[in-house]
Formats: sequence, C-alpha cells, structure tokens
Amino acid sequence: MSLVVVGSIAFDAVTTPFGERERMLGGSAVHFSLAASFFTDVRVVGPVGSDFGEAELEVLAGRGIDTGDIERVEGETFFWRGHYEYDLNTAHTDDTRLGVFGDFQPKLSTDSKAAETLFLANIQPDLQREVREQCTGAQLAGLDSMNLWIETARDSLVRTIGGVDMVFINDAEIRMLTEEPNLVRAARAVMEMGPSAVVAKQGEHGAALFTADGFFALPAYPLETVVDPTGAGDSFAGGFLGYLDSQDRAADEATLRQAMAHGTVLASFNVQEFGTERVQRLSREEIDERYHAMREMTAIEGVPAP
Amino acid sequence: MSLVVVGSIAFDAVTTPFGERERMLGGSAVHFSLAASFFTDVRVVGPVGSDFGEAELEVLAGRGIDTGDIERVEGETFFWRGHYEYDLNTAHTDDTRLGVFGDFQPKLSTDSKAAETLFLANIQPDLQREVREQCTGAQLAGLDSMNLWIETARDSLVRTIGGVDMVFINDAEIRMLTEEPNLVRAARAVMEMGPSAVVAKQGEHGAALFTADGFFALPAYPLETVVDPTGAGDSFAGGFLGYLDSQDRAADEATLRQAMAHGTVLASFNVQEFGTERVQRLSREEIDERYHAMREMTAIEGVPAP
Repeated sequence: MSLVVVGSIAFDAVTTPFGERERMLGGSAVHFSLAASFFTDVRVVGPVGSDFGEAELEVLAGRGIDTGDIERVEGETFFWRGHYEYDLNTAHTDDTRLGVFGDFQPKLSTDSKAAETLFLANIQPDLQREVREQCTGAQLAGLDSMNLWIETARDSLVRTIGGVDMVFINDAEIRMLTEEPNLVRAARAVMEMGPSAVVAKQGEHGAALFTADGFFALPAYPLETVVDPTGAGDSFAGGFLGYLDSQDRAADEATLRQAMAHGTVLASFNVQEFGTERVQRLSREEIDERYHAMREMTAIEGVPAP
Repeated sequence: MSLVVVGSIAFDAVTTPFGERERMLGGSAVHFSLAASFFTDVRVVGPVGSDFGEAELEVLAGRGIDTGDIERVEGETFFWRGHYEYDLNTAHTDDTRLGVFGDFQPKLSTDSKAAETLFLANIQPDLQREVREQCTGAQLAGLDSMNLWIETARDSLVRTIGGVDMVFINDAEIRMLTEEPNLVRAARAVMEMGPSAVVAKQGEHGAALFTADGFFALPAYPLETVVDPTGAGDSFAGGFLGYLDSQDRAADEATLRQAMAHGTVLASFNVQEFGTERVQRLSREEIDERYHAMREMTAIEGVPAP
C-alpha cells in the first residue's frame, strides 16, 4: 500500500465572502496528499522555492507524508491569488506566479517509482506522461486536468489519458474534452481513450462515477457554510485514491463507490475552512462519522445492516 | 387516495437538437397528471380553448385521469413556443400566448375540493392560494413556482408558500426567493415560511430533499439521449406526489425518499421523447424496473435485502 502524487505545492492568497488569507499552504499535491494520508502511506513529488520553510514541510510530515521527493529550488514557490463571489462556485484567478514550478522536471526516487497507486495532479500533460512512464510499479494511475490543457495541449492530454486508469475532471471539462454535451456519452468517450473509470466532479452537486458497466453518483455533503472551496477537487481525489490504495487494488464496483464517498467526505471538510486548515486537524473518527452520515442520507430504502 | 392538480393545459411548439414538434399537448397540469396517474386517482383543473379537441382530452382520460374540471372557454388554448440548445439545460422561450389562461379563475368541483393531495402547479400565486383555500380536504399540498413570480409577486408567493406542505422549485429559484446563496440555508429559510419539506430540482444533477431533520439527494437517472426536457419538473412532481398519495399520508422520511426516486424515474421517461410521447405509452412495470435501477445505482454499500 503506497501512493505517490505529483503536482503543485503552492502558496495561495484567497478571498471569499467569509474572509481572506494572504499566504497559506496550498497546491494540488498538498490538498491531495493531506486527504489521502488518512488512509495510506503517501509520498509527494513537486518543487518548492527558497521561501518554503520548515513549518510548511511539517504540515505534511506531521501527517506522516513522505516529503523526500519535494525538491528545493532557488526561487519562489508557485503562488496563486484568487477570489470567490457569494455563490462560491467559481474561482476567479487574480494572479499566478509559476516561480520554480515553471521549470519543473519531476525526478522520482526509487520508492516513489515503486508506489502501487499514482495520482497525476493537474500539471502539463507531457509532464504527467513522463511521470506515468517512470512509475513502473503503479498498478493504478489517476489523473486530473483542466480547461487550459484541453485548449492548449489536447493531443498530449489525450495520449496521457490513454495511459491512466481513472480520470478525475469536472463535468464541464469532460464535455469540452470530448465535444459531447451529454455527460453519459462524454464519459464513455473518455473511457474509449483508455481509462476504465471516469469521475465527473460536479462541485456543489457532488460527483458521478462512470465505469464500463456501472453508474454511481453522490451529492456533495450538505453544508450550511462553505468558507473556501480551494482544493476541494484535490481533496476529493485524495480521499478517493487514498481509500482505494488501502483496499484491494482490484477496485471492484463496490470499493469504487466507497472511495467516492470517502472522497466526498474529505472534500466537505476541506471547504469548511480556509486552505488546509480544517483537514490539518481532522481525525479518522470524524471521517468515519461523516461517511456513515453519507450512507444514511443517500439510501433510498435505508442502509443495509452491517 | 386522490390527487388534484391545478395548472396549465397547453399546446407546445418545441425545437431541440433532436427535432421539433409544431403543436403537441403540454402544460404543467398535463405532465404532472400523466406522471401521477400511474400511482393514484388524479383530477385535473385548468382551462382549455375551443381549439382543444377530444383527442387531447383522450390522452388524459385514457390514463384514467378525471377531466371533469377541465373548463372549456371560448378562445385559444395556452400556447408556448421554445427551443433548447445543445446542452439541453435551459429552455429559451420564443413565444407565449396566454389565451384562455389569461382570465383563468379556478372552479373546483366538490370531488376536487375533497381530494386528499393537492398540487398547485406553476401559476400566479394569488390563484394558487385561492385554490389552496378551496381544497378543504387536502391533507398534503405541494406547490411549484418560477422566477417570474419571485420577481413580480414575491409577497403573495411567500403567503402562498405559508399555506402548503411542500415546495418543488429549482435550486436557483430557492436561492433567489430567499436571497441566500447557500442551498442548505436557503431551503431552511423556505421551511421557515411554513412548509415541512423543500424539494430542490436540479435538472441534470437530480434533486435534493430538505426536511426539518433530514437531507436526501438523488442524481438524475443517467440517459445517453435527452430529447426534450419540457415538463421534466412537472413529471417529477407528479411521480413524487402521486406515489406519496398512494402511500401512508404521514409522509415519513422513508416514504419521502421513495417518492423522490419515483419522481426521478418519471422525469427520466418524460425527457426521452418529445412532450408526453414517452409517458403516454409508459407502463408501471417499466417504472418499477427503473426504480430498482435507481436503488442499485445510488447505494454506497449495496441495496438492503427486500
């Protein structure tokens, strides 16, 4: 059981209707690995600048995450500044400074290459593919992407998708990638590129799972206050793949559904406070409690006896 | 067990990416009553013009629906023309002619006033309230509305909502009505107006049910082809309230969840063909089959033994 994630490690400045943070730990690899760390052994691969301190590393190490493949480079850590309006559904980017992330060439240690599960967070698809090829031990690989790569590097992205088992992208991006407005057909078109499962992230509407012969969907966990949605998708993927890595790697339909629910639970904690603040002090007991609540609130005819 | 619906009876002209119909039977009361007719005795109240023929009446009567309270008035039947783009999520209105619906004053027969369940389809809220007051036998009343009434008759709508048990409106309208962007808080604000349950219709994302101490949500039934979404919301409400009327009127949480699933199933058949075409030749067996499929595709840990 081990999982490696390659993606961004960042400082985020975020303003939402509930407040703001000028500089907090963020980035896809950070949100993913914190969420996954509740279920399995996690290794993070990504670059940080000379402004990245011991306190930030300790957030990851404190959750038992292996930071040995975090590469220190002279320069500035990736920086993102954004804000959300009252509906909290759309992130508006105000500033992006790639810093050391601009020249990122992933170098994986032997242990990372041997990890059984791999997550390629949202980075340039050529880099994702290089990492996939280095990770010869990975029996299960998942990938996230975004509209930018669909628009600017579509062919590369399609090739990269061809080499992974699961795709985690939002429903608008699935439609954009396949030029198919019907989500069921669009998800099937993605599976025809190679993956055996497609997870459509739907923000406040939850997530849907498409497999060769199955469909499953979960609402988001209902929250009266969403403070900061930044990182929700990566926390979802981290909960999902972390749980999956802790179970039978065969990833049967039943296990995938439980993974969906664990992803949903981790995303829900992520958005309740700024950045990683809530997940940093989360406990497995709180996760299990919310997982059981999800079972209750989605069962049409009640929950089966344990 | 009996259910009365008050709403529009219409001719619709609809264009979607899959074709068009120049003049077909439509209207909220029609879609609602056809869906509900699979579960209980249904009576329709609404006006039609001199252009409304026996063939149209027979569509309703053929499903056992009581058409005695359909009022024939000199003039034209309500007419709506609209189209949908490729994403099929938004109806674009091209023409509306109120016709005899413009002077509609609901007159209910003794039998309709005695019905145990009442649905006030999307009409002017003053009219909805008058009908609610006439229906002294109704132990359960539901209501639909729309952005037009929220903008032009908000106070009346809030009063009308105060007199019903359940509200079926889409999530954007719940937010608009309550001026609260968070859906959980917004639904609670609607319940504070009087109703004990709020159903947030979410189109392709399904529907969510809010009650005093419960939350439940279902995805839409996954379809590879949606031909015409017109009437989906009314078919949902018809399946929901028709099922509920056929069960214990107490409407406990478990029954409400099954009603959500039956509403979802009826809405899914509705959108598979134009107008009422698919629902007209639907069977209870097909409904039950899809209901069981919904149970399977939403259970995190499998379906309980029967």
